[in-house]
Amino acid sequence: MNAPLVLHHFFDRAVALYGDKTAMICSGRTVTYRELGERVSRLANGLRGLGVRKGDRVAYLAPNTLEMLEGFYGVFEVGGVMVPLNTRLKPDDYVFILNHSETKVLFVDQELYGLIAPVKNKLETVEEIIVHHKTEAAIDETAYEEWLAAQSSAPVPRPMIDENDICSLLYTSGTTGNPKGVMLTHRNNYLHALVTMHHLRVSDRDTYLHVLPMFHVNGWGAPFYYTANGATQIGLRKVDPKVIFDLVKEHQVTVMHMAPTVLNMLLQYYEQYQPDVPEGVRVVIAGSAPPPAFVARVEEKLGWEFIQVYGMTESSPLSTISLIRPQLDGLPAEQKQRLKAKAGYPMIGCEVKVVDENGEEVPKNGRAIGEVIVRSHGVMKGYWKNEEATAATIRDGWLYTGDMATVDEYGHIDIVDRKKDIIISGGENISSIEVEGALYEHPAVLEAAVIAVPHEKWGETPHAFVVVRPGHTVSEEELIAFSREKLAHFKAITGVTFVDELPKTASGKIQKVHLRRQYWDAIGKSGRYVN
Amino acid sequence: MNAPLVLHHFFDRAVALYGDKTAMICSGRTVTYRELGERVSRLANGLRGLGVRKGDRVAYLAPNTLEMLEGFYGVFEVGGVMVPLNTRLKPDDYVFILNHSETKVLFVDQELYGLIAPVKNKLETVEEIIVHHKTEAAIDETAYEEWLAAQSSAPVPRPMIDENDICSLLYTSGTTGNPKGVMLTHRNNYLHALVTMHHLRVSDRDTYLHVLPMFHVNGWGAPFYYTANGATQIGLRKVDPKVIFDLVKEHQVTVMHMAPTVLNMLLQYYEQYQPDVPEGVRVVIAGSAPPPAFVARVEEKLGWEFIQVYGMTESSPLSTISLIRPQLDGLPAEQKQRLKAKAGYPMIGCEVKVVDENGEEVPKNGRAIGEVIVRSHGVMKGYWKNEEATAATIRDGWLYTGDMATVDEYGHIDIVDRKKDIIISGGENISSIEVEGALYEHPAVLEAAVIAVPHEKWGETPHAFVVVRPGHTVSEEELIAFSREKLAHFKAITGVTFVDELPKTASGKIQKVHLRRQYWDAIGKSGRYVN
Ligand SMILES: Nc1ncnc2c1ncn2[C@@H]1O[C@H](COP(=O)(O)OP(=O)(O)OP(=O)(O)O)[C@@H](O)[C@H]1O
Ligand SMILES: Nc1ncnc2c1ncn2[C@@H]1O[C@H](COP(=O)(O)OP(=O)(O)OP(=O)(O)O)[C@@H](O)[C@H]1O
Ligand SMILES: [Mg+2]
Ligand SMILES: [Mg+2]
Repeated sequence: MNAPLVLHHFFDRAVALYGDKTAMICSGRTVTYRELGERVSRLANGLRGLGVRKGDRVAYLAPNTLEMLEGFYGVFEVGGVMVPLNTRLKPDDYVFILNHSETKVLFVDQELYGLIAPVKNKLETVEEIIVHHKTEAAIDETAYEEWLAAQSSAPVPRPMIDENDICSLLYTSGTTGNPKGVMLTHRNNYLHALVTMHHLRVSDRDTYLHVLPMFHVNGWGAPFYYTANGATQIGLRKVDPKVIFDLVKEHQVTVMHMAPTVLNMLLQYYEQYQPDVPEGVRVVIAGSAPPPAFVARVEEKLGWEFIQVYGMTESSPLSTISLIRPQLDGLPAEQKQRLKAKAGYPMIGCEVKVVDENGEEVPKNGRAIGEVIVRSHGVMKGYWKNEEATAATIRDGWLYTGDMATVDEYGHIDIVDRKKDIIISGGENISSIEVEGALYEHPAVLEAAVIAVPHEKWGETPHAFVVVRPGHTVSEEELIAFSREKLAHFKAITGVTFVDELPKTASGKIQKVHLRRQYWDAIGKSGRYVN
Repeated sequence: MNAPLVLHHFFDRAVALYGDKTAMICSGRTVTYRELGERVSRLANGLRGLGVRKGDRVAYLAPNTLEMLEGFYGVFEVGGVMVPLNTRLKPDDYVFILNHSETKVLFVDQELYGLIAPVKNKLETVEEIIVHHKTEAAIDETAYEEWLAAQSSAPVPRPMIDENDICSLLYTSGTTGNPKGVMLTHRNNYLHALVTMHHLRVSDRDTYLHVLPMFHVNGWGAPFYYTANGATQIGLRKVDPKVIFDLVKEHQVTVMHMAPTVLNMLLQYYEQYQPDVPEGVRVVIAGSAPPPAFVARVEEKLGWEFIQVYGMTESSPLSTISLIRPQLDGLPAEQKQRLKAKAGYPMIGCEVKVVDENGEEVPKNGRAIGEVIVRSHGVMKGYWKNEEATAATIRDGWLYTGDMATVDEYGHIDIVDRKKDIIISGGENISSIEVEGALYEHPAVLEAAVIAVPHEKWGETPHAFVVVRPGHTVSEEELIAFSREKLAHFKAITGVTFVDELPKTASGKIQKVHLRRQYWDAIGKSGRYVN
């Protein structure tokens, strides 16, 4: 007898077993799981009233608030599909996503309403906009809190939900091209939650601070597994190191998720101001590869636990973890820190391989580079309205991640580049990230991005885009010479384009696709021009 | 894209990530996960050679050995169904189970071969018997170790396995009647493993001592989740307190599962001999309700952690857990120990209700009694070749456990009786276990079992079967008067049958079905005669 793996069971359990416990503290407001349950019922009744039915899309444009958290479960109650929107996009991006997803109802925090107002008339399917924290009379939309209060708090009759029904539609970061709508099912997110809560040792004694935006792959599933365990959650409107350290101390936070860039802000703040912090906070890192030095800084200075994980929207997202296995306890501390900064090894239920072009696993020598492929319970149903991209990405039951990696003698995977970014010179794979790392050591380099450009003899060669640090100067020749000092010669750059800034995604990842376009436009011909 | 939830992935992961780590220590022998992987491949090749194909049943009659553990995965590799046999049955019981399950190959430990030899010619489907640890030349069967060594260690081509395929066929204890064959699927055991490993905080740093027999609902899934996490496992041939304490110390065991009766043996031994023990060992208890006093003895004397769980073969088995939730931290220690001795509250993914005859949940007052019903990922596919019993047990998607329970104000469930054993007197439910508890306080009572017998005025009334402690005497009148002192009058016994011993299952549970039969046979008429 199969009980379907559907996410609202997590919420039901929290309300039943942790009704009196604090569910969320947000903007000075504290709600228990019972109160949250009531709000979710009201929201679900409201959505029904707006005609939202099974399979309909409901979008959220909000910071990490109580309203955002309850949104997931309110939408699931009526069988809807949650479309969480990145808060750092441009108005036209929202037009694309909202129309592409055919969203029916849009919830938006007042502080972000300005991103929607100018394009409102371009929204083809949105029937209703409801504004969280609405105080400005000038905004002519439904005010959330009043609307919610007017709804019944009786549980809604739930439609039949199959575990293979879609529950979230997530647009990827857009690092390598246009964002794609990733369809994740209840089963995807449910199984991802079971496995992740286990590896991250989530419990009802946790206090989770929502640093990672809930719009990033559902905050990597945090609203699901912290809720299932009855943990207390803390909202966060803005990533500000002082605010974060204050909240960590005030609420005795035990766990946070974030990207390396945010961790970097925290480390810098900590080293400057030495705020008082509780011990042993688990900091879970993913999104890009952090420098190994971060691990030592987290562990030795803050006394916190550093846990690196790796994943992508298409796999719910997490597939690997970097905790030190007991048989490696004896390695020198420095080597263990290097290991923790890698993506790691497969979580339970995830098969992860690094393969060459023939589909053979690369040798475990820390040097050979191959593509990461994944088969797991978290792999998406497909890309929304894009069967072609789906078929190109999921082949023979495996998800082709487009991430290039090495595997060391211990089986730890290290992401070295995006497939589209790797440089193939004289038959050798060059990690653009490694070359950038060398350039960053030059004092005049504020930012650097390296792409492949054609070379008569070697096929391709590394070319750098560099933003010079204010007050410094440096020439193309100097940087080429510098990179030849730091790297094997075949990896050294052979040209530099100086720019004022680098194109980035909303989450701060450099978009090399635009640099390639810029390079080819400049030289007026076309060549390897991926995307 | 759904990756099927199949158990051999757990084993693959252990071999890949924990190859050099100790998988099992058993009878002085230590094998790593890589070596275990090789043995499992040999076993699978051997089974293929014997003609075992997808869906075929393979039975194991063995103590908690290395050979038993590898059996699960060897059988799964070829798509077979594991039938673990209770080692304390009578020869004819094995005839029933082996024929009923249509088992093809039987593995038996030499020390248990004597249970099979006398009935070998009654086995209708067993084609091959293979003996573990065979040293006696007189036994004319294949010797396991030599047979294994002769097989190829190359991985077998795995048949396509669907997550809804049966992987284990488990015969229930037979407390309430004839044992029934419970069909559990890969999905059942896989999801049960994910949830249980999380709640029991299993990790690769655990050392698990196999106290609970692996034949009891697969050791409540231990071979699945300790393996998935790469924990080290310790074999155990015989439940002996001294041996257990020695192993716990020698291997720094961190976790064990057992029934209250075994815990009782450990406590008594500890209190007498005070052996040296590591701190914080997790002791996971299920099978019957332990006396609350056990909790204090475990926690205060041994310094170990007491975790009560509840389940039944039909649900893989576990559904509830009794850890103290943080909102109850403030309760007095004694009350918390009382709570820990109850079955507890639902694990993640399990819905558990206690309902009256109309299907309504009973009030949470710790008094009203109802039947426990469960809906979860662990609920069996059904009873093997018994559609009628399946339909009677799984109704409207819920498993009717036949266990009667109360629910307290905190939502903790307390099992008070089997449905078939509860006594209904003047419309009131009387827990036979409660009445027995009162009788046990009488110094002359060695053992007591209470059943319902007809009563003209009250419908039913409690009747006791009592074994008198050697050297004591007591009359029926004395015991009736004693029970009226200790209990509300309507709960007091109204008759006693003195017996030399009580009928018990192989795992020591009293079979009241036989007592009822005995009562009715004695008075020569028939009445409420369940089973
Ligand atoms: N621990 C990590 N180490 C290195 N890279 C990581 C790690 N975790 C995630 N990543 C990178 O982030 C990617 C997943 O990001 P996400 O799904 O948000 O969208 P994106 O890939 O950046 O955007 P798009 O798919 O639209 O180009 C991974 O494919 C990988 O390149
Ligand atoms: N923590 C617990 N507290 C009280 N009783 C428990 C607990 N755990 C298990 N039990 C009892 O054990 C039963 C499950 O045992 P099992 O599946 O081994 O077979 P059985 O019910 O004893 O035998 P049969 O079904 O053949 O009569 C439960 O239904 C319940 O009665
Ligand atoms: Mg991507
Ligand atoms: Mg039973």
